[in-house]
Amino acid sequence: MNDPENIKRSGVMLVLSSPSGAGKTTISRMLLAFDDNLHISVSATTRPPRPGEVDGVDYYFITKEKFHEMVANDEFLEHATVFGNSYGTPRGPVDEKLKAGNDVLFDMDWQGTQQLYGRVHDDLVRVFILPPSQEELESRLRLRATDSEEVIKNRMARASDEMGHYNEYDYIVVNVNVGDAVAEVQAILTAERLKKNRRNGLYDFVRDLRGLGDED
Amino acid sequence: MNDPENIKRSGVMLVLSSPSGAGKTTISRMLLAFDDNLHISVSATTRPPRPGEVDGVDYYFITKEKFHEMVANDEFLEHATVFGNSYGTPRGPVDEKLKAGNDVLFDMDWQGTQQLYGRVHDDLVRVFILPPSQEELESRLRLRATDSEEVIKNRMARASDEMGHYNEYDYIVVNVNVGDAVAEVQAILTAERLKKNRRNGLYDFVRDLRGLGDED
Repeated sequence: MNDPENIKRSGVMLVLSSPSGAGKTTISRMLLAFDDNLHISVSATTRPPRPGEVDGVDYYFITKEKFHEMVANDEFLEHATVFGNSYGTPRGPVDEKLKAGNDVLFDMDWQGTQQLYGRVHDDLVRVFILPPSQEELESRLRLRATDSEEVIKNRMARASDEMGHYNEYDYIVVNVNVGDAVAEVQAILTAERLKKNRRNGLYDFVRDLRGLGDED
Repeated sequence: MNDPENIKRSGVMLVLSSPSGAGKTTISRMLLAFDDNLHISVSATTRPPRPGEVDGVDYYFITKEKFHEMVANDEFLEHATVFGNSYGTPRGPVDEKLKAGNDVLFDMDWQGTQQLYGRVHDDLVRVFILPPSQEELESRLRLRATDSEEVIKNRMARASDEMGHYNEYDYIVVNVNVGDAVAEVQAILTAERLKKNRRNGLYDFVRDLRGLGDED
């Protein structure tokens, strides 16, 4: 007999991207806190840990040699090098979580999303978070009163470039307030879990409903 | 300036189908009661009104001549004739609602869904409702104590045929309890409204965010 509340399905790979200042980190944390079935993908990096960062939680901290070995063995779903430090998404832990029936959250930029989409596009659900207005974005990027106008201008220009990639995503959430934005991403996740193509246990479940389960 | 809470989008055409006995009518009513932006598509029919049925609410009651005229003028999104009575979905009211920014709910069977999909597949969101078990379905189809076993067998056989079409739908909702089932369809509707391809106002909204609104 099939349990109607536990029909087998493949996991959702949920990507969240946004320009900095749009609230993505807060939204990610709230999603993870509210949903036991959603696990974050932890990146590997060659940069040294900062004070307070925990290995295996914030990042997997690995050597450059190990990183190159993993690249050579195709063990990253995506990877990049920024300012001399390398970052990558290890494939193993993601596969394990998906196999165990969990969904996986990826907090990454548009470059990472493009790479990931090239590898696993069937299961990828891409959500882009936008700020509600340019004024609000600027006030969020104006972090300290001592920031020079040039620093702020650079941050705004970078955010503008990032936002130009919104059309590479499946869903767009505008973060007017964080509670509503979290609820919207939760609705996206709920809907994606209900998609027929993901629920591979439906075939047997419907056979049982139709009374065809045992006969042939 | 663009309002972040009212970004222009095209309406969702939400189809609900199910075998009889799966609870679709209750779910439809609750969805409509909770969501002012969702309007039901009212079918036209040549059958006479039953006691209590209201023209324009339950059906548009029209003559056979009018029906044939509408078919000839391609004014139906889908239509069918069952036991000598004709039924059809008039295109005009649906177009009007979608144009006004509303979403439209279609309560129809798999034959109607197939026809509709052939016409408007880009905007169609197809949800199939399943009962939680064969036993539960049978008890819902056993309406009166006086129903003969043959009548019930026929109802079950018909439901079985209908359920065989679940794989022509985008989302599958199992109606274990009606509150959860309604919440799941609401999540699907919320998610579909957030899809980038539906939100044609995003282009201007993002231009404003990027500070490109007035310059070029």
